[in-house]
Formats: sequence, structure tokens, C-alpha cells
Amino acid sequence: MRLAELSERSGVSTATIKYYLREGLLAPGRQINATTAEYDEEHLRRLRLVRALIQVGRVPVANAKEVLKHVDDDSLGRTIRLGAARWALPQAPDPDGEDPITVAAQAEVDRLLGILGWESTREIGGLSPVHRSLVALVAALKRLGYPCDAETMAPYAELMHEAARRDLDHMETYESDTEKVEVAVSSAVLFEPVLRALHRLAQEEESARRYGIE
Amino acid sequence: MRLAELSERSGVSTATIKYYLREGLLAPGRQINATTAEYDEEHLRRLRLVRALIQVGRVPVANAKEVLKHVDDDSLGRTIRLGAARWALPQAPDPDGEDPITVAAQAEVDRLLGILGWESTREIGGLSPVHRSLVALVAALKRLGYPCDAETMAPYAELMHEAARRDLDHMETYESDTEKVEVAVSSAVLFEPVLRALHRLAQEEESARRYGIE
Repeated sequence: MRLAELSERSGVSTATIKYYLREGLLAPGRQINATTAEYDEEHLRRLRLVRALIQVGRVPVANAKEVLKHVDDDSLGRTIRLGAARWALPQAPDPDGEDPITVAAQAEVDRLLGILGWESTREIGGLSPVHRSLVALVAALKRLGYPCDAETMAPYAELMHEAARRDLDHMETYESDTEKVEVAVSSAVLFEPVLRALHRLAQEEESARRYGIE
Repeated sequence: MRLAELSERSGVSTATIKYYLREGLLAPGRQINATTAEYDEEHLRRLRLVRALIQVGRVPVANAKEVLKHVDDDSLGRTIRLGAARWALPQAPDPDGEDPITVAAQAEVDRLLGILGWESTREIGGLSPVHRSLVALVAALKRLGYPCDAETMAPYAELMHEAARRDLDHMETYESDTEKVEVAVSSAVLFEPVLRALHRLAQEEESARRYGIE
């Protein structure tokens, strides 16, 4: 398809597509002659992902480039490739390793992983930005006087593990490894707000059931 | 306690406390003489909540004021008071009611609530900003070519319902209604990022278990 059709089918303006091409977020089309290039379904799929990251997930262009680099790197094992793409997304700021509250939060997260039996994440530990951001959050809550201990977090973590199993089951229905990683990235960015909205809605439902609507 | 001690115990600077007092986010202390006021444990608790909202939740001051107005309004029933406080938090933008994709998303969310048997939220419907923001998110995903149907969302919603039951069980361990609403608000703001981090960590764990770490 030509640029105009790619724009029409993706809902992204031709000016924005040209910008993504210049930034290297989208691979160039197949050049037909000096002024015309041809695009295929893979371009359309990638364009949707770029738009999801930038327009909905508000991921900065530099991060999006980093994410896509890992999506496309088929020299990596799947866990690392998935992890690297996820890790390139914007994260909560890193904890300050020096102060005593962070050290206590670190111990609490470690205890949580022990209770859960999550040996792999425990092994990866602070190497993972996700792990570090959980430590930073637990430290922030402690500092505000809302302690968040391993026993409180554990049942929530089990629920999230159930959600993660569904996420990966869904991902595995896709054929190519590139598509799998794309799905993982887009769901990280797009599905998290849905999950949060479902949580808030569930609180409303449960609250109405327990205390009535009036 | 005096202002200096309130600052010390809360970790909030005296300048910031004075700003919160001026903005009406914190009730004035008991005036002892022309220049000195006395504060109590309730001030300390409220100060932690204000700081959680503004510094961690990045809730704008105007929204925080609105939230606290509902926290303090004991003329309201508990569901309404909880809901009003939650509704005053920043939400995803409202859906555009006119366009066909939003209408389809609206129908999908309605079908979801039917499957779940969430009669109360179905009844409240578009009156709730949480409900409207779920519709807007489903519409945004549809527009990006990632359809998000009722059957896909339902099991996630059940997991979030389990989380919501725990949230309310925890809330009910507090004594006064004001404290209950405060806990609901602070957990909405502070615990949501923890839940998201647990979800991402669970994805890492599950991914490592299925595909190995290398």
C-alpha cells in the first residue's frame, strides 16, 4: 500500500508517519521509484504499536526507540527480550540505596518474594527496574506513615500472578516471536490503565453491595 | 504539638505546612496566643494524607481540596462519600459520546457488567467517572486496533473484585468513618502503583518460569 492508504488504515496522519520514519521508529517502505514507497501489513502493525506507545502510553520518543530496538532483536532469549522491552518503558524513579528506609523496604520486598516463592525475580533482584521501582514505592509509603508489609502485599501479588498467567497465555496465541514481544509491550502500556479502571469499578461495586447506594 | 514538631514528625517543611493551611487543605490549629497554635494527632494524620495526594499521587491542589471536602462530609452515606472522594481524583478524559466507536465501547462495557453481575455499577453507569473512563479506554484500544472485549476483560475484572474485597476489609479495620474514607483515598492513590509494580514483577516471574532466564 502507499503512504496515503497506510495513513487511512492506521488513522495516523501522513505528516506523523513521515516523522516516525525520520526518527527510525518505522522501517522505510520498499522504494518503487524516486518519490514512491510501498508499505505492507507489518508496517501497519508496527505503526499501531508506535502510536499506542507514544499517543496513549505517553512514552517519550527516545524510550519508544529503545523499546522497539529490543522488540526487533531476535538474538536475545525470549525472557530477556520481553524484559528488556518492558524495562525500556518509563519506570518509577530508582530508590536511594543509602538511606535506612530504603534498606528496610528492600528487605520487605525480599521477604515478599520469599513468601511467594518467586525465585527467579528474587534472583534477578535489583538488576530489574521493575524490582527497584517496587522497592522505591514501598519506601515512599513507609516514609508517609503507610507501611506496606510483605504479608499485606502477598495476596495482591498472587492475584497479579494470576493476571500475568493470562497475559502470557494470550501472548502465546500469536505466531512470531516479534509479534509476541509487540503484544507484551502494547499490553503493558495499554492494558494497565484498563486494569486500574476495573479495580476502581470493582471497589464501587463492592462498596455499593456492602453499604448500599444511598 | 507546635508547628515545629508537626513538621518534624510528618517530614513536611514548616513552609509547606503553612501553604497547606493557607489553601485550607489542613484545618487551623488551636490558637494559644497571637503567634502560636497547637496541633494534634488528627492534624498529623491529615497532613500525611495531603502529602500522599500531592507529593506522591501528583494530585493537583484543586482536586485534593475537592477530595478532602468529601472525606469530611459526614452528611453523606458511606458509598456516596467514598465514591465522591474517589471521583474527585484525576481521571482519564471523558469519552466522546457521539462517535460510533465510543457507542460500541459503551455497549461492550455494559455487556461486561452483565457477565459479571455487577448490578450496582451497571445502574450507576455513566454517572460514575470511573465507568466513563473505562469506556474511554476501551474506545481508545479499539481505535488502535487492539480490541478489548467483555470476555477478555471479565476474568481480569474478577481478579480486581477480589482485590477490592481485600481493600474494603482492610478499610473496615479503621474506627471512624472519616478514617475509613481517608484510608480508601490514600490507598487509591498510593496502592495503585504498588499493584502495577506487582503485576509487572509477576509477568517477569511467569516469563522466567516458562521460558527460562537465559
